[in-house]
Amino acid sequence: MSSEFGKTLIVGVFGESHGRAVGVTIQGLPAGEAIDEAALLAFLERRRPGKNTLSTARNEADKPIFLSGVSEWKTTGGPLCAIIENTDARSQDYAELLDKPRPGHADYAAFVKWGGKADLRGGGHFSGRLTAPICVAGGVAGQILARKGIFVGAHLAAAAGVCDEPFPLVPSRKLFEEVAAKAFPVINDALGDDMQRAILAASREGDSVGGVVECAAAGFPAGLGEPMFDGLENRLSAALFGIPAVKGVEFGAGFGAAVLRGSENNDPYRMDGDGRVTLKTNHAGGILGGISTGAPIVLRVAMKPTPSISKPQQTVSLSKRENAELVVKGRHDPCVAHRAVPVVEAVTALVLLDILLEERQEWN
Amino acid sequence: MSSEFGKTLIVGVFGESHGRAVGVTIQGLPAGEAIDEAALLAFLERRRPGKNTLSTARNEADKPIFLSGVSEWKTTGGPLCAIIENTDARSQDYAELLDKPRPGHADYAAFVKWGGKADLRGGGHFSGRLTAPICVAGGVAGQILARKGIFVGAHLAAAAGVCDEPFPLVPSRKLFEEVAAKAFPVINDALGDDMQRAILAASREGDSVGGVVECAAAGFPAGLGEPMFDGLENRLSAALFGIPAVKGVEFGAGFGAAVLRGSENNDPYRMDGDGRVTLKTNHAGGILGGISTGAPIVLRVAMKPTPSISKPQQTVSLSKRENAELVVKGRHDPCVAHRAVPVVEAVTALVLLDILLEERQEWN
Amino acid sequence: MSSEFGKTLIVGVFGESHGRAVGVTIQGLPAGEAIDEAALLAFLERRRPGKNTLSTARNEADKPIFLSGVSEWKTTGGPLCAIIENTDARSQDYAELLDKPRPGHADYAAFVKWGGKADLRGGGHFSGRLTAPICVAGGVAGQILARKGIFVGAHLAAAAGVCDEPFPLVPSRKLFEEVAAKAFPVINDALGDDMQRAILAASREGDSVGGVVECAAAGFPAGLGEPMFDGLENRLSAALFGIPAVKGVEFGAGFGAAVLRGSENNDPYRMDGDGRVTLKTNHAGGILGGISTGAPIVLRVAMKPTPSISKPQQTVSLSKRENAELVVKGRHDPCVAHRAVPVVEAVTALVLLDILLEERQEWN
Amino acid sequence: MSSEFGKTLIVGVFGESHGRAVGVTIQGLPAGEAIDEAALLAFLERRRPGKNTLSTARNEADKPIFLSGVSEWKTTGGPLCAIIENTDARSQDYAELLDKPRPGHADYAAFVKWGGKADLRGGGHFSGRLTAPICVAGGVAGQILARKGIFVGAHLAAAAGVCDEPFPLVPSRKLFEEVAAKAFPVINDALGDDMQRAILAASREGDSVGGVVECAAAGFPAGLGEPMFDGLENRLSAALFGIPAVKGVEFGAGFGAAVLRGSENNDPYRMDGDGRVTLKTNHAGGILGGISTGAPIVLRVAMKPTPSISKPQQTVSLSKRENAELVVKGRHDPCVAHRAVPVVEAVTALVLLDILLEERQEWN
Repeated sequence: MSSEFGKTLIVGVFGESHGRAVGVTIQGLPAGEAIDEAALLAFLERRRPGKNTLSTARNEADKPIFLSGVSEWKTTGGPLCAIIENTDARSQDYAELLDKPRPGHADYAAFVKWGGKADLRGGGHFSGRLTAPICVAGGVAGQILARKGIFVGAHLAAAAGVCDEPFPLVPSRKLFEEVAAKAFPVINDALGDDMQRAILAASREGDSVGGVVECAAAGFPAGLGEPMFDGLENRLSAALFGIPAVKGVEFGAGFGAAVLRGSENNDPYRMDGDGRVTLKTNHAGGILGGISTGAPIVLRVAMKPTPSISKPQQTVSLSKRENAELVVKGRHDPCVAHRAVPVVEAVTALVLLDILLEERQEWN
Repeated sequence: MSSEFGKTLIVGVFGESHGRAVGVTIQGLPAGEAIDEAALLAFLERRRPGKNTLSTARNEADKPIFLSGVSEWKTTGGPLCAIIENTDARSQDYAELLDKPRPGHADYAAFVKWGGKADLRGGGHFSGRLTAPICVAGGVAGQILARKGIFVGAHLAAAAGVCDEPFPLVPSRKLFEEVAAKAFPVINDALGDDMQRAILAASREGDSVGGVVECAAAGFPAGLGEPMFDGLENRLSAALFGIPAVKGVEFGAGFGAAVLRGSENNDPYRMDGDGRVTLKTNHAGGILGGISTGAPIVLRVAMKPTPSISKPQQTVSLSKRENAELVVKGRHDPCVAHRAVPVVEAVTALVLLDILLEERQEWN
Repeated sequence: MSSEFGKTLIVGVFGESHGRAVGVTIQGLPAGEAIDEAALLAFLERRRPGKNTLSTARNEADKPIFLSGVSEWKTTGGPLCAIIENTDARSQDYAELLDKPRPGHADYAAFVKWGGKADLRGGGHFSGRLTAPICVAGGVAGQILARKGIFVGAHLAAAAGVCDEPFPLVPSRKLFEEVAAKAFPVINDALGDDMQRAILAASREGDSVGGVVECAAAGFPAGLGEPMFDGLENRLSAALFGIPAVKGVEFGAGFGAAVLRGSENNDPYRMDGDGRVTLKTNHAGGILGGISTGAPIVLRVAMKPTPSISKPQQTVSLSKRENAELVVKGRHDPCVAHRAVPVVEAVTALVLLDILLEERQEWN
Repeated sequence: MSSEFGKTLIVGVFGESHGRAVGVTIQGLPAGEAIDEAALLAFLERRRPGKNTLSTARNEADKPIFLSGVSEWKTTGGPLCAIIENTDARSQDYAELLDKPRPGHADYAAFVKWGGKADLRGGGHFSGRLTAPICVAGGVAGQILARKGIFVGAHLAAAAGVCDEPFPLVPSRKLFEEVAAKAFPVINDALGDDMQRAILAASREGDSVGGVVECAAAGFPAGLGEPMFDGLENRLSAALFGIPAVKGVEFGAGFGAAVLRGSENNDPYRMDGDGRVTLKTNHAGGILGGISTGAPIVLRVAMKPTPSISKPQQTVSLSKRENAELVVKGRHDPCVAHRAVPVVEAVTALVLLDILLEERQEWN
């Protein structure tokens, strides 16, 4: 098992949904980097549950405690460990599920893997709650990147089949901040209202919906990454698929590129007024041959609908070896895609910082 | 740089398009596994260029020479190295390109990365020619998996906007073999004819098209993989994005899951007549929480249109720092997606064998 | 930076000597493995400081708190995180040292590396205090190995130039337990008394001494490990050099083998009465070609004398760029080798469990 | 299995003693680095067998063929692959050994691991012949390091119990070159003559001897490396134990430090005339806390006596499950330590270049 990613910046998460704490370790942070606590807490607040009817009623304060690697709000150069205590876990909700695997969850796959010995209450180590420590790490990474002129932002590009506007060719830091400040993270609020109505409609029927998160990084220098199996797309996708419920990852035009012609999809190069090479379009999402082109990194992840729904579902009883019906109780999100927006930012920031540290080590 | 992937089974490629040879090393193969040379050559033939008007006119025999790791057509347990010599490289075609980066290729990104010191004739180490040694490794892996009852197959799910039929819920070995035997690897030949017409139409206009490859693995056992960052999706996507021109990877319903409701997307569990747990649908593509469910692994990759087109394109002169026009000469494919079909199979087989070796080591 | 080791069982430590807590994460533990808390605390007690005049006066309770991966004293299959809070750190002792690097410590090397930005109070992340969480992890690993019939033990083979008896050809579990139960971990107590006298003699002169720890693992099966760069010796040494103050690692006859003839050093094979292959001698330390032979794994590590001594020492002032004298204050061990005995056991147990999990995965 | 090492510079070897070729791949070399072929061949010549009565009579030309990664004797930035063909293998010498494991060789351990399915003729992948491609890679690395002002040299510090002089505190490039130019690589030729007499005496008795190789790297900058498990000692030892016959690795005073007092072993800091921090002694071998101090890196490796001797030895018949006697035929070295001198240099150079590339990436 490896609940970590990264090569120079190694990020590992630990914790179970209903254990004592969840947390994250980060190895390889440069020393002396400041952490703005208020900004970090604001970043975490964007992911936090319990705020409105669109999210699970589980209410967690989600305030990280730094155990190591930080001294007087500066990184020490040693491994950072931050934990978030679990305070509102209600394990009794999950008793039935140990025998009846929930469709769409990892219960059955984990049962086969561990022979029923894993602690899967609340999803165990598979729980979306693990995205909280990922955001702690990603929030720190984002602050470091911003000081290098690299800004990472994301929005809910689609939910329940309703689409937001896409990011412009070169999204600005200001746009990222505006979207991040919104209760519902879209570019076009009218479209966001439509999404919310569609989510609540599904919720009222005991159902859930999926969505798409679009993420961009502006200011990432050209020439970083590697060909073949260790490029930007390889490493970003490997980490992004670690976010629960992600079922697809695409860069630039992505699956849309498959229906374009080469003459449409190729991004022409142009000299700008200052003698710098720029790209007129960005179908490549800022990545060619695994290496950055200098255009913004643009990616989209597909989030499946929350598997926990209150409608009755068909499953089996593992003990009785017979068919069974299941109604999942507990507190769940009718949609996780909007809460996943900062998580996608966090993972993207961590991977980009990892690659930056690997190839441009002005910190050392 | 890391031109390799895998943890227990480590696959690394080497070679430049216009160098002496391309090749592959495989560490971690079990000892005593037979290699059927005729079957391997047939597998490689599916990827080989120069066969028809849909592919580049470059003609390479593509016969692998095994330097190590194989003795009397059985694996020895030591690292395997196989090479394919380059015999038909024509470097003079590429002189202009060193100064004028081709849109859609890695030329400019590589120029920034290596300061012009890399050998990029014919795409250098970025060349699609590197998929030949990947197929040597994948062909060997596929033979080993088949002896364990695991069958990997793929088809061209779409090209130039024309779609093939999707794989059935549980694709058979027979279907895989039928598709593999075809000159144009689709399930429905009438749809395949439409695709070919569309590809040739683009080709006549000096243009190119993209496509989608769907790959499935039947017989892969439930309970293999890991949660979080080392699961089946993480590792498959990380390797698949190493195939040149891949811009998107999705599993099961993938991006389509984002528009489904939870009640539609969740795959119900049912007991079959023999008391085994089965899934009625497979929107998860055989993977939940990074772990296999026992249903077929199903994935799709988006291939962008071949960036090399004969239409004039806008670029820049890196030496003169001014705008320039470029007409890419040389021999190129109007579509690479159909030739990518065995490559996607190869990468999928290698990743699945890696995970199988890691968790089910009956070989050792 | 990577403060972790292992491939299937990944062990990472975090914490600074004078930070809030030190701790360890373990990824890849099988699920359902029992942890005997009392035995674990007894194991940690062997390393704990503050017990007698041979050790630093720093007094830490060293009771681990399990944050994740353990539920009702059984492993859950998810990453385990355990922390030990720092309660008796006195940072004022270290002010002068930030400017005057202590000879024999990492201060100067770390100053150059991090430009003075690392938190090095008490040795920071380099501190011997990090061996406490290593022992937590190693104590857990040792309990799992013992249930598989593999027993790891160590003794202080030499200190201040005085040698203990070596382990017998096949050390028994009983011998390991007897040594572990002693206040001073030697086989021959009379020799141990000589060592203690020599340590105290150095201590009275404001000086320190080094030593050698010998560790053995009985019951480790034959045929595990790999040739070349991933064998038992490679992985054991890579981890053992992570223990502060280790300057040499040898297996079996080690440096002594360099003065033997082949006919003396080769271990003859013999059939035992039950038709099993055994070795008459064990100059190889149970490892040939990186792979276990079935004989006990035997290794020795050289520990340099504690660099912190109270005698005046020559150093420099980094701010004034001039020579300076230094008297190291604070609480220090005149010898660390005896306290390193359980640490060497811990690291050895973790590496062996890693390799066992990798190659004999009956747990999955 | 992993027949490779390194993180940024990844070096992998392949080949069997009696296969078609042995070879090496290097990933992560900077682009545009010149390779001086004549100097590389001279380096390889130092390891080559068949030159005199001290070495095996097997005669191999050992001329590497570069298949990729090199164009017009400059690195391309892509993976380098170089092979050396096997031309003088005589497999008939090894038939008996498949049943009767040779004491001191990996035969029995490998038999258990692979169930007899590995190709072990001539030692298979365990063969000392694999040190030829390691030297190809190390020779290239040494040339790159030298252009950065880092020089790596080694000598035979002891053989058959006879010791050479140690390296001086700061060995010069000139001394390294003088030793490298000698037929028998020692500093003091009179002592070298004694060694050779002792080796030949053992050889005449059908026996073999071991030795110690001392290696130093001058000019390696201070501040490189990592604390804990990824430091210079961890990574050097992990790679050095991959050289066949190595049974111990120590840095600086090494095992000798265990009998020193702290006041003797600590290296005092002094300002030199130019305001640079220097060390008066180098008991640390240039490494403290895993990080370089700026003093020369100094290490020693213990080589066991060649296990292949012509004296009769006790072994077992694996097929008959009974005791047996074995006389190893074939051509063997009475001592491998002198031929290991360039191999230790090669591995040291590769690890140091890896760390340099990781932390000082002025190449990118």
